[in-house]
Order: sequence, then structure tokens, then C-alpha cells
Amino acid sequence: MPLDELAVIDRYFRPLAGEGAFGLTDDAARLDVPPDADLVVTTDMIAGSVHFLPSDPPRMIAQKALRVNLSDLAAKGARPLSYVMSLGISAETGKAWLADFTRGLKEDQQRFGISLLGGDTIFMLGGPLVSITAFGFAPKGRMVHRFGGRPGDVLFVSGRIGEGASGLALLKGEPGPWDALPARRKEALKRRYRVPEPRVALAPALAAFASAAMDISDGLIGDCDKLTAASGCSASIEAESVPLPEGLAGAERALLARLMTSGDDYEILAAVPPAMAEAFQRAGGQAGVPVAPIGTLKEGQGPVQVLYKGRILKLSARAYVHGRGGKGK
Amino acid sequence: MPLDELAVIDRYFRPLAGEGAFGLTDDAARLDVPPDADLVVTTDMIAGSVHFLPSDPPRMIAQKALRVNLSDLAAKGARPLSYVMSLGISAETGKAWLADFTRGLKEDQQRFGISLLGGDTIFMLGGPLVSITAFGFAPKGRMVHRFGGRPGDVLFVSGRIGEGASGLALLKGEPGPWDALPARRKEALKRRYRVPEPRVALAPALAAFASAAMDISDGLIGDCDKLTAASGCSASIEAESVPLPEGLAGAERALLARLMTSGDDYEILAAVPPAMAEAFQRAGGQAGVPVAPIGTLKEGQGPVQVLYKGRILKLSARAYVHGRGGKGK
Repeated sequence: MPLDELAVIDRYFRPLAGEGAFGLTDDAARLDVPPDADLVVTTDMIAGSVHFLPSDPPRMIAQKALRVNLSDLAAKGARPLSYVMSLGISAETGKAWLADFTRGLKEDQQRFGISLLGGDTIFMLGGPLVSITAFGFAPKGRMVHRFGGRPGDVLFVSGRIGEGASGLALLKGEPGPWDALPARRKEALKRRYRVPEPRVALAPALAAFASAAMDISDGLIGDCDKLTAASGCSASIEAESVPLPEGLAGAERALLARLMTSGDDYEILAAVPPAMAEAFQRAGGQAGVPVAPIGTLKEGQGPVQVLYKGRILKLSARAYVHGRGGKGK
Repeated sequence: MPLDELAVIDRYFRPLAGEGAFGLTDDAARLDVPPDADLVVTTDMIAGSVHFLPSDPPRMIAQKALRVNLSDLAAKGARPLSYVMSLGISAETGKAWLADFTRGLKEDQQRFGISLLGGDTIFMLGGPLVSITAFGFAPKGRMVHRFGGRPGDVLFVSGRIGEGASGLALLKGEPGPWDALPARRKEALKRRYRVPEPRVALAPALAAFASAAMDISDGLIGDCDKLTAASGCSASIEAESVPLPEGLAGAERALLARLMTSGDDYEILAAVPPAMAEAFQRAGGQAGVPVAPIGTLKEGQGPVQVLYKGRILKLSARAYVHGRGGKGK
């Protein structure tokens, strides 16, 4: 039997609704903003074959859709609060799919302390497709932007760069050094591609110390180009300082270049004034999100310079473009 | 040449960005809420062949996507402010399509005094598909809900009911009494289906006088069932009081039933306490949005009773379901 929109809302989405959602029985929601906070809004849509594999478990699709948005909020120094979601599915989508999808949302709502504020479910050809607009609070006046970085600021990244790309290569069966990793590590990398780890816990440290920040979704180098362009400066990055996936550290040049220009890491790139660099690194560690210095913002304009063994590393591609087989510039 | 996301943002979307959007160069936007306002949030997604005809002009698709959201805000008594948009298009979509699509957004932004706060463009199979989350302000504590209506309240509708359905029938070439209308009227009805007229100007009157309200997107009767269910009461509607499209007034029974249960009107259904009914009607007229009393909220539960020539009108379907050929219950 084809699904009915009202029955779907009632059965699967109503249990996810939070304060201001009026049990999803109204046409709109109310979002209350405390006087000491700035409301931060971000939106991201993901579609099958572009941002996830059609065979991915529904729970993971749900969590990816949510987490790419939470990652943006975290990068802006904002604590996540709530979200609205539009879901496009085929009318033949089964109840088991919806049950697993909403189980994924529920798990993440509990994990990140957020709730569903409203949504829309449509039955369409193709799909699944998930569009989420997420809301968060930054301390008043402390929202972190891509602009605001200044020459001399230390560039940090959270976590390890290239885990998303390694996981995708493993899922696609593409040969590479990841094949030599232990089975447990391989599984972790695949999961990492399917379900990013938004650095929500780093948000307070970013709001407190960062002059500029963004999440890395389209490759470290290309995204760093964007941060420096917005900040009106350039940067240099020491490739040897970039933390790589466990077991792939010390990668040879071509692999290193690839890991630094591939998508789906959802780590944070932050510029921090030198006087605050130590405090930022300590705060990251205390929040359970290790951050590593990888370079410096510089005077001038133009693409980020990547140094490898003291020489400039030439990169054929700088950014990852989803849905284009990764080709970008 | 296939489109590039950054080039698309730069060329077509940046000119639409408003305050708090940071020129669409950041990962998120900031939304400032004045202390005397409640922030109202709504989200709606529309897809080709479900909510619009694939042959519709891009400008009209853009305006429909925006206006179905503005209609929800208006029904809640909220003045529209800004929106975020996710757009899914094929990588082969031409520049002319995007130019016309964004022209439609620009026109409506000027008309309704709103701006673009952020967005996401993805290249996908199929499409176009537009997901919009819209933001508005209601006077503090005055957001209007589906719940809140009380027995004795007068039921009002704005405009005329069934214009959307008549326009769709004309576009589909379905024979009916609309064929006898003058060419100019036919064009107006077709346009009405393609581009709804959100009753933004009625929002202040709703915030001031209505006990409950919603916009009518899935048919007057089915939507009225939703309002009464949320308000914990029932209602009776006098079919002869329902304003019908010009030239179709005095429709015979089957047509009347159809017009009252078809989608895409985007008029407002409001419950107003009897003591305020006159003031509400006057305020609607002054705002340029005529409203007509069509019935009354009643004690009890259960589906709305529709009276026609003093007898109960039996309806085979009560609501319109998009993407299912209109079949619903």
C-alpha cells in the first residue's frame, strides 16, 4: 500500500518534534532566541548517487543529512538547537525504510541535543533526497565567519584529513594503501564516509578563539582557498603537518595530494591569532577534538601555497566537486 | 559546458542575498530577531510533475516555491522576512533557465520585501526541485495556530475557492464549465494555478483577530477538517456561501464539491470570535484581501459538515493529495 503523508508524519516524525514544533500539527513553527545568543542558520540538501550511495542504510542517510548541517553550525561557533527537514521519497518507499531513517534521526537528536521543528514529505520520482535547514545559537556577537582571518594567524585542522576519501575508495573497491589496513580500520573509514562526525564539541572553542573558520567538505586545500579569499589574504600549509588517517601517515606525494583535496572530511579549518593558538589547542583537547597547527595565514592574495619537504607541492585539482566524479579546480 | 556551483552562486544567487547572508560567501547566515517579534519558520519542497508541470516557465516555478511558503507564514499572522533555498537541478540545466528562475525570485523579493539568506545548489538526476525554508515575524505572542479555534467562532475564507483547480483543469485540457469563460479569465486561472497569490497582506488582521487559521493548499474541506481537529471541535460550512471563481458561481453540486476539495488555492481559512468578525472582515477589505464568512465552528468532534440547499452534502473525497492524481481522503 502506498504511503500517506499524514500517516507518515503521525507515525514516524511526530515523535521527533520538539519545543516550538506544536507536534507538527501546524503550518509553521516558532523559534525562540535567547537575548544573549545569535541565531545561526544553515541549509544543505543531499541526494542519492551524488552525496551518498543508494545502497547506504537509511539510518546513515538520515544522519549524514543532519550532520553535514551540524558541521556547518559547529564551524560557525554555534551550538545546535533544532532543524526542519524536507524529505523526498518514492511513493513505493517501504515502512522499514522510514522506520530506519527516523531511527537514525532520533539517535542523533539524542546525541546532539536537538529536535525536529517542522518539515515536509513529498512523494517524487527518484529520491531519496533530504533537505535540512538547521538552527544553532552562537554567543552574541561571536559567530565565526570565513572572513576575519588575518596574516599571521595560525591555521588549525581538527581530526585527520582524508578519512572521508579513504572510506569512499574502500566502498568503491578502488585499490590503494587503505587495502593494507586492518579490517576494523577499514570499516571505521567506510563508516566515516557514510556518516561524518560533526565537530559540535569544538564550537565553544571556535567562538572563543578563532578569527575565521569553516568546515572542510570539499577538500582541505580548496576550502582553505575559500577561507583565505574571504579573509583577503593567502596562506601556506606544511603538508607534513597535516594529520592523515591512521595507517596512512607518511603517505607518498600523490596520495598526500589526493587526501588533501578530497571531499567529505567534515573536519574544521580554523584561523587563530598566534597569541591564542595555545589556548585554542588546549580547549580542543579538553573538548575531545584534537586540533593540529598546519600552517599560517599570509599577506597577499591567491591560492594557498602547499609546502612538501621544503618545496612547493603542485596540485592538479584543489577541490572536490560532488556529483562530478570529484573533478574540480 | 556544465555549470559550476560557485559560478552559479556568484552569477545568479549573490544578487539576491540580504542582510545576515554575508553575500552567500559563508557556511551559514545570521538571523536577527527583534525583541517584540516571534520568529516563525516554515518549510516546503516542490518537485516537477508533483507540484508543477515540467513545462512551466522557470520564473513561475521559483515563485510557486517561494509563495507556498509565504502563504504559510501569512496564515500564521507573520510578516515575511527572508528565506533559505536548496535547489536541485540537472548539470545540463542551461543558463537561460537559471536566469529566468532567479528573475522570478528577484521579482517576488521586491514585491514581498524579503531577501535570500542562504542556500545550496546540487546537481542531481531529474529535477528541478526546490526546497525553501522561510522566516517571518509575528507580533510577540500573536502567532496564529491551527489550534485555538472555539465553538461559535465564525469561519472565513479569503478570495475565491477552486481557482487553482480550475486553472489546473484548463492546463490539462480537461473539459468543464471553465471552457466557457472568456480567454482572459482562462489565462488568469492558469496563472493562478502556476503562481499562487499568498495572502501576505492579511497577516496583520489574522494576528489581531483570528483564533485559528491555516492556508488552504489541499482543498477547503479537508483543510478545514485539520483546523477543527487541531482546535478540538467540529464545524459546519454553507456551500452557497463559499466564494467560487468568477463565472463559475452557482456551480451545480458535483462541481461545487470538486472545487471545495481540490488543491492549490492558497487562500486563508480563519476562525474568528463572533465579536471580532466584523472588524476582521473590514480589516481584510482594507488590506485588499476580501474575506467571506462561510460557516461556524461547532461543539463536538468529527469531519466538517457541509450544507447545500439546507441538506448535508456528501463528499467522496475531502482533500487533495499532490502527486496522486488528486485522490485522497
